[in-house]
Amino acid sequence: MRFGLVCGTCGKQKPFDLQGMKCGCGGTLSVEYDLERVGRTLTKESLQSRVTSMWRYEELLPVTSMAHIVTLGEGWTPLIRLYPLERQLPLRKLWVKREEQNPTGSFKARGFSAAISVAREHGVRKVAVNSNGNAASALAAYAGYAGMEAYVFLPKDCPGLIAAECSLYGAFTCLVDGFIHDAGRIIQDGGREQGWHHVGTLKEPGRAEGKKTMGLELAEQLGWKLPSVIVYPTGGGSGLIGMWNAFMQLKRLGLLMGDLPRMVSVQEQGCQPVIDNMERGGPFVPITSGVSSNPTGMRVPEPPDGELIVRVLRESGGTAVAVSPEEIRCAQAEMGKSGISSSPEGAAAWAGFLRLLDRNWLRPSDEVVLFNTSHAMKYTPSQPDRLPVVKTYEEWKRRRA
Amino acid sequence: MRFGLVCGTCGKQKPFDLQGMKCGCGGTLSVEYDLERVGRTLTKESLQSRVTSMWRYEELLPVTSMAHIVTLGEGWTPLIRLYPLERQLPLRKLWVKREEQNPTGSFKARGFSAAISVAREHGVRKVAVNSNGNAASALAAYAGYAGMEAYVFLPKDCPGLIAAECSLYGAFTCLVDGFIHDAGRIIQDGGREQGWHHVGTLKEPGRAEGKKTMGLELAEQLGWKLPSVIVYPTGGGSGLIGMWNAFMQLKRLGLLMGDLPRMVSVQEQGCQPVIDNMERGGPFVPITSGVSSNPTGMRVPEPPDGELIVRVLRESGGTAVAVSPEEIRCAQAEMGKSGISSSPEGAAAWAGFLRLLDRNWLRPSDEVVLFNTSHAMKYTPSQPDRLPVVKTYEEWKRRRA
Repeated sequence: MRFGLVCGTCGKQKPFDLQGMKCGCGGTLSVEYDLERVGRTLTKESLQSRVTSMWRYEELLPVTSMAHIVTLGEGWTPLIRLYPLERQLPLRKLWVKREEQNPTGSFKARGFSAAISVAREHGVRKVAVNSNGNAASALAAYAGYAGMEAYVFLPKDCPGLIAAECSLYGAFTCLVDGFIHDAGRIIQDGGREQGWHHVGTLKEPGRAEGKKTMGLELAEQLGWKLPSVIVYPTGGGSGLIGMWNAFMQLKRLGLLMGDLPRMVSVQEQGCQPVIDNMERGGPFVPITSGVSSNPTGMRVPEPPDGELIVRVLRESGGTAVAVSPEEIRCAQAEMGKSGISSSPEGAAAWAGFLRLLDRNWLRPSDEVVLFNTSHAMKYTPSQPDRLPVVKTYEEWKRRRA
Repeated sequence: MRFGLVCGTCGKQKPFDLQGMKCGCGGTLSVEYDLERVGRTLTKESLQSRVTSMWRYEELLPVTSMAHIVTLGEGWTPLIRLYPLERQLPLRKLWVKREEQNPTGSFKARGFSAAISVAREHGVRKVAVNSNGNAASALAAYAGYAGMEAYVFLPKDCPGLIAAECSLYGAFTCLVDGFIHDAGRIIQDGGREQGWHHVGTLKEPGRAEGKKTMGLELAEQLGWKLPSVIVYPTGGGSGLIGMWNAFMQLKRLGLLMGDLPRMVSVQEQGCQPVIDNMERGGPFVPITSGVSSNPTGMRVPEPPDGELIVRVLRESGGTAVAVSPEEIRCAQAEMGKSGISSSPEGAAAWAGFLRLLDRNWLRPSDEVVLFNTSHAMKYTPSQPDRLPVVKTYEEWKRRRA
């Protein structure tokens, strides 16, 4: 076997498995590859003639047969130099990674292309996800293409257009009176009875691996030399964790030149567990009350492995920064005027970046990459209509009967 | 000079010029390249190591210095095999070209990356366009990035989200009480006084050349062998015309194997000048009254060069087909369930394709490419709010004063 699982905390190894990403020690399992074998075929030269999707890195994705791949054209997104903004700022280079150009208009496509491919390889027929929006619509699209039944659970205040998108892709779409972790509980409770394969954050091995390709691409697109700083809007954190894993793998494969980037998490004020825990230190404490931030991908009060997010930020010499709704609004307008349509999350990255400039945390020699995760448009205020709203799995079952 | 202009009707040649795309004979001018020179550097081999945007075909785009290119990551969009739908149909292969994965979420990005690059090379500072929506938002984004002032004029019943997108990109956005050609008249009337560079369909040499890259890509992505049929939703027709020019150029460059495709135009019932003229024969007659179709990119009662559209369809052995709003709705739902978010125009392509199957116009040996030009979401019903609505240039001027 080319890949297995390994615990990020105690280092224990396990055979590859579709479910159960928690180690006995409490740590999170991730996919580990036989890098010696990978390195025989994955080379800078071999990459030159490969598909221009994230599947160009097939050796570093947990699918055995390429016949199982479910692809809608994800990855290999543009990395655009933000010249109009860069010129006015005291730093060397500024890019935006345009993740909104993925299928379904968001970076979530990567995770689900991988997760649904893995699921197909293992004969899965029904998939379910809890999501603040874009993960749900990405799952819906990939499951639709693969002919699987998709069940998506979204907080009832999620962006209406994204809920409508889930329905367009044919998913059973349900709103939840609660937060993303409440939606997750419904899947947890009903999973066995309904035969759902849970593709929530860090619940299975595909999504973090798919998102990892953002890191692989960044390295390749920058000539195998990473930027000094990556600013990433953070919710569940699998993108950040995935990218960091990618850098480690590239390093061990001998493909990287120079230093690793300082990783920066941005969250919105009113739900900032990553910032709070970075400042506080000690074991990770989720937020259990008083959440007041807007319903975006960053609103994750109880990230499935907050510990791991904080560890990546620390190890990289990075930081975490909270921004206000007003700063996000201004950032969105500013990016817009430079020709970039940014989601609130992407705009938060720009707003967080400005804060770091103000604090002199950034250096004039820095080369910075911001991640724009989705289109502004997907968040146009609108009510998700004619969709059921439930609080628990039992209620969902009753409503469906 | 590597390129000049040539009349598609009388064959007269002229030096390259930023404005005035009409020949004395009434024909439309297009860009002509020194193909012998182009062929020295544009080869199948050289393409392998080039940028994965439409600028990989720089020799076939009318910009002299690559320093003037305005790029936001346009082109080299995925070509996805529609396996879930293909299996149920009597034809060999079916693809969708995912143009919605361009910047600004539509194929229009290509035209404006080229048009704004050309404009920048010639020192333009103010640009204006009449559009049914997506052209306006694409212009707004590219002009924003290039630091130009953009003025966009849209029919007042255009999709509200797209009008909002134009404002997000910082364009002066104005609604017009009329159709796209009425909006064009405002630019025509005010152009000189306002110093607007008119980037409407076929008004300048960049847009059709930018869109041409859809054809270049298709050829390269399919291993230099074109499909037997291309189904394209048609409004102003510059995409169709551009692709046909691309195929001619590739043929003369000796890069194409096999036959040229049969080109198919799809329009919505209620505004189908292309279908009417294909059926009627004789000189092209625009539609001057009784337009009842929905406000999409296909609603162009008076295409700037309808004659040329019809000529391409005929020359290629293609056809034109009209579809109903109900067929478009069903097509959008069907594509959605296969994981593709399609604009009404992209859905119309699928609906038109189904009609051709019904009519036995398609053959079991056919390989078909559909163009999906934009995201479904951009057309979510919503009113463009707080924007001025005018009928004439004089009224626009008064309102602005």
